[in-house]
Amino acid sequence: MRIGIIGSGSWATALAKIVTDNGHSVQWWIRNEETIRYFQKRRHNPQYLSSVYFDLQQIQFHSSLPELIASSDCIVVAVPAAFINNLFGELPVDIFRDKQIISAVKGILPEQNELLNQYLERVFSFPLSQYFTLLGPCHAEEVAAEKLSYLTISGTDGPTVESLAAIFKNEYVNTLVNADIWGVQYAAVLKNIYALGAGIVHGLEYGDNFLSVFISNGAREVVQFLHASANKRSALDYTLSDYAVSVYLGDLLVTCYSLHSRNRTFGNMIGKGYSVTAARLELNMVAEGYYAARCIHTLNQQMGCDMPIAKAIYEILWNQVPAATAILSIQSSLV
Amino acid sequence: MRIGIIGSGSWATALAKIVTDNGHSVQWWIRNEETIRYFQKRRHNPQYLSSVYFDLQQIQFHSSLPELIASSDCIVVAVPAAFINNLFGELPVDIFRDKQIISAVKGILPEQNELLNQYLERVFSFPLSQYFTLLGPCHAEEVAAEKLSYLTISGTDGPTVESLAAIFKNEYVNTLVNADIWGVQYAAVLKNIYALGAGIVHGLEYGDNFLSVFISNGAREVVQFLHASANKRSALDYTLSDYAVSVYLGDLLVTCYSLHSRNRTFGNMIGKGYSVTAARLELNMVAEGYYAARCIHTLNQQMGCDMPIAKAIYEILWNQVPAATAILSIQSSLV
Repeated sequence: MRIGIIGSGSWATALAKIVTDNGHSVQWWIRNEETIRYFQKRRHNPQYLSSVYFDLQQIQFHSSLPELIASSDCIVVAVPAAFINNLFGELPVDIFRDKQIISAVKGILPEQNELLNQYLERVFSFPLSQYFTLLGPCHAEEVAAEKLSYLTISGTDGPTVESLAAIFKNEYVNTLVNADIWGVQYAAVLKNIYALGAGIVHGLEYGDNFLSVFISNGAREVVQFLHASANKRSALDYTLSDYAVSVYLGDLLVTCYSLHSRNRTFGNMIGKGYSVTAARLELNMVAEGYYAARCIHTLNQQMGCDMPIAKAIYEILWNQVPAATAILSIQSSLV
Repeated sequence: MRIGIIGSGSWATALAKIVTDNGHSVQWWIRNEETIRYFQKRRHNPQYLSSVYFDLQQIQFHSSLPELIASSDCIVVAVPAAFINNLFGELPVDIFRDKQIISAVKGILPEQNELLNQYLERVFSFPLSQYFTLLGPCHAEEVAAEKLSYLTISGTDGPTVESLAAIFKNEYVNTLVNADIWGVQYAAVLKNIYALGAGIVHGLEYGDNFLSVFISNGAREVVQFLHASANKRSALDYTLSDYAVSVYLGDLLVTCYSLHSRNRTFGNMIGKGYSVTAARLELNMVAEGYYAARCIHTLNQQMGCDMPIAKAIYEILWNQVPAATAILSIQSSLV
């Protein structure tokens, strides 16, 4: 099976490392031809995880997306959600026919307010049975350092999920399998909102005690949202210990607590008094939680879950409510 | 109502601060008369939270426990669980008659393997209806700094729980109420095991990714234990969002992640290669998780929950299994 990777950020680079370390070749799409030339000369990514060196014999680079797709059977998408429509919007509608797609996207498409599978189904009639996700509490920096991490492959086709899990498993990555293709994606989207919020709370100089209340109530909101959305799909029900595993709660924790977390860093700046615009300019990157806050706010208008934290973060990011005021206003709602 | 406090550690001192800040007088038992004399001269605890100054007009010190009990209607017990039997073992059996007891004990009595309410019932026929707990994610250092914290009062007598909650609520402490007197105590005991384990994992140089897997699986074990023990008592059932609140999950998080956590520090030393004895000597204090690991191991022999992490920590602390070996052995059990 020919494996393709789309993206040149730290997460795409980490995934390329895992796959090539496991002895597979990869087709790798990188938009910028200069980056490709640098890579071919120096054997590492010029901007991200530059300590990771690759064996070039295992990699075929592409700067043409149709070429990458044609050269791959299974395509790993590892770009920010906000870039997806620009990348895929002009492609022929049958281009993904008979391909497998693994989403390593940690967000929701901001303009469309769709998960990647919804977008692919609408635009390309791409079937859910060929769609998988690769998620879990996994900062790319620790993959680069070969620190033990856990990733979860989710999908509706059990045997394929198992075989894909084998591609990513090695001595520093443990892979788990899961059938909850919708829930894992919503959990991944939601956690960015709470991590951004954790950064805000930290920036406002609340302490560890309050932070733990904030994050446990964030977990509570995720659980309620997943429960409501699962009921809507008449799919899974969530029990307590279903959620307290790495791909849901673990991912929330690492994103809220790790200093590697971009969402937390972005929130911290806002808590310290930066405007949203200034924080975005300064960081020069997309914090998925920024868009996620608006998307989830919209989705929850139909769902009606009680999500005071998500609402407060939305008000801070999109309605200019001062961070201190918004956090003060939810204190009596936390349990 | 006359409020008594038993203990002179950091948590007892923090509670005395909260109660006196709220305008109440306290009867305060401190074993060491020299500490009392220092306190009376300098207005602060010589050893713990020494930045917190008290108004001596609000405090009556006692070095005699019977005297403290006779002078109090409601007694807050804030000593390590391992000291309880030495303190209370020789008291007359009717000494607590008509008193209210609030347990701020974060552990289980190690020799008796009993929660404080079980011990009080067995030794003093003390009724559960007059027993309450004060728990939650609350490091004393942040109370001293007046950082916003949340505490939960639990008990079977709802109206009294509400009135006790009012005693502790102020601008830096939010109090919540809860009826699950058994579950909150088991959660408080269990979290020390996982925090000690988080320290071990950190000491062994695992990264943030693995730590989040470890802690989310710890949460999973707590949930399963609470569920099994609740079924045994035919009392509460636990749903997902019941657990994801401050007194359960929040307390686990702050204890696992905060550098204020003594259990985490103790575990970290073991992960770095200290023997259990050397770590205990070096820290010169009781890490509740040390005893909790053995007590929960024993309790779970009847309960039969799947608790690979708790078992591994028990093996490290009590059966001389090397930390690296024990953690390696559970990696494939984590989800």
